[in-house]
Amino acid sequence: MSLLDYFRSTKKSTANTAKERLQIIVAHERRRRNSPDYLPQLERDILEVIRKYVDISPEDIAVTLEQRDDQLSVLELNVTFPDEKR
Amino acid sequence: MSLLDYFRSTKKSTANTAKERLQIIVAHERRRRNSPDYLPQLERDILEVIRKYVDISPEDIAVTLEQRDDQLSVLELNVTFPDEKR
Repeated sequence: MSLLDYFRSTKKSTANTAKERLQIIVAHERRRRNSPDYLPQLERDILEVIRKYVDISPEDIAVTLEQRDDQLSVLELNVTFPDEKR
Repeated sequence: MSLLDYFRSTKKSTANTAKERLQIIVAHERRRRNSPDYLPQLERDILEVIRKYVDISPEDIAVTLEQRDDQLSVLELNVTFPDEKR
């Protein structure tokens, strides 16, 4: 399964393989170019939801929001937990 | 980028390529086997958040929660919007 290959390969490239990590990817494919894109708002809401479960600070989170083409947007959130934080 | 290849390949395999789609993947890698897994709760919360933005019914959503190994869980939510629903 290529997605998990992607996740595993990302893991190997980091120095600390034993850290706890949470990776969230949201891909939104719109049917029309002018249909609404709510990913920026969704990003804020998802982070809020995650904070219900884990104690994370802004520096633990890497966020990218990429407009791949007119109709495809991809939001990626990477949370790496500091050692023994929880 | 292999993740987008994955997304694109999934898209091609469906009959209706013009539909609006939202795909959410959450990968949680725990440091220890006995650390808490909150993905089932996170799944419910993320669906609730998505419903703030889009009018979806349960049959529009396909959810899989996979325990890949002792430390890696992967939650995948696929939302396909019916034609002209919104």
